[in-house]
Amino acid sequence: MGNSREEKRADLRARLIAAAQDQITQHGITGLKARALTTQAGCALGALYTAFEDLDMLILHVNARTLARLGETLKAALPAPDAPPEAALQALASAYVDFACANRALWIALFEHRLPEGVEMPDWHRKDHAVLIEVLIAPLHALRPDLDEAALVMRSRTTFAAVHGVVLLALQGRFVGVPLDQLKSEVTALVSAMTRGAHLGQDAG
Amino acid sequence: MGNSREEKRADLRARLIAAAQDQITQHGITGLKARALTTQAGCALGALYTAFEDLDMLILHVNARTLARLGETLKAALPAPDAPPEAALQALASAYVDFACANRALWIALFEHRLPEGVEMPDWHRKDHAVLIEVLIAPLHALRPDLDEAALVMRSRTTFAAVHGVVLLALQGRFVGVPLDQLKSEVTALVSAMTRGAHLGQDAG
Repeated sequence: MGNSREEKRADLRARLIAAAQDQITQHGITGLKARALTTQAGCALGALYTAFEDLDMLILHVNARTLARLGETLKAALPAPDAPPEAALQALASAYVDFACANRALWIALFEHRLPEGVEMPDWHRKDHAVLIEVLIAPLHALRPDLDEAALVMRSRTTFAAVHGVVLLALQGRFVGVPLDQLKSEVTALVSAMTRGAHLGQDAG
Repeated sequence: MGNSREEKRADLRARLIAAAQDQITQHGITGLKARALTTQAGCALGALYTAFEDLDMLILHVNARTLARLGETLKAALPAPDAPPEAALQALASAYVDFACANRALWIALFEHRLPEGVEMPDWHRKDHAVLIEVLIAPLHALRPDLDEAALVMRSRTTFAAVHGVVLLALQGRFVGVPLDQLKSEVTALVSAMTRGAHLGQDAG
């Protein structure tokens, strides 16, 4: 027992992930520099590359942590299972807006980070993203019991992306985005319209 | 008349904008390099900085052209003014998806380009973005005659951002995005739900 090589490596990785998370929070993903990172983690520059394949893989680990926290936040926001689906979708959207606003740089990193051309996202990290969609399945199923599993998954992705788009353009401060002080009410109005419209969709096809 | 200094400068700027548009189309905004650009435009590297303040300002001019073309495309897609608002919103969303798919790199550049910290977007370019929102005002007004001008502008931004989010995650190939072959049908379903829901919004508040 004690300081085996594996334990030292796990400790180094944990320190590097924590330092990278802090650096991204402060400077964004484009401001993440190997030297500042390793200085903060208290290791040599070269140690970074013994702990992780490269900086991109380290960023994936930070994003995995952010997604896990976001997933917990979304699940905690869900009302009782017998609440109407509208209430569940509004609670999820509201929690998503709050998380994005409170964790701006880490949240942006989830959607801005791109692996170099030709590099595939590892399977373990692909699965980390599923939390964003999974929570939507049950309320959408309640709204649209006519849709089969595959159609529900598609509709969940679309519903997520619609809310995400409004949050993204607002937080990026884009000219066409809604001002931050109206983000919450506009997302509520969007979810409300989508939900009422989806209800009707059952009849209208 | 003839080759005045102003005319030469205008010609140089036009050649640089055309070359930058071509380079962005091929390599994306991150692949835009001053040297390749000036070689293609047939001018010296230094000439770039006599024609434009810097590379960022040149990108804004490319984006302005893309937005102008996109605006024309959206206006051309509008059905007759007496068509139902649903038809107008579906036509606009469909044209937006088609434009983004057909002009992927130039379209992504509209939303990925960021000016350096502390640099404000010039007013002339701010106005270029208005085309994305303006076309939505009339159909949304027809759907929601109860909303005042300011609320309509907000709702137009939100409607745009919702559709934009679905297109963005799909074209970026994000795990949570819808697959490209289902993008059109999912956007149609989203606009349909938003439209039906907005109709009800008149009564439900």
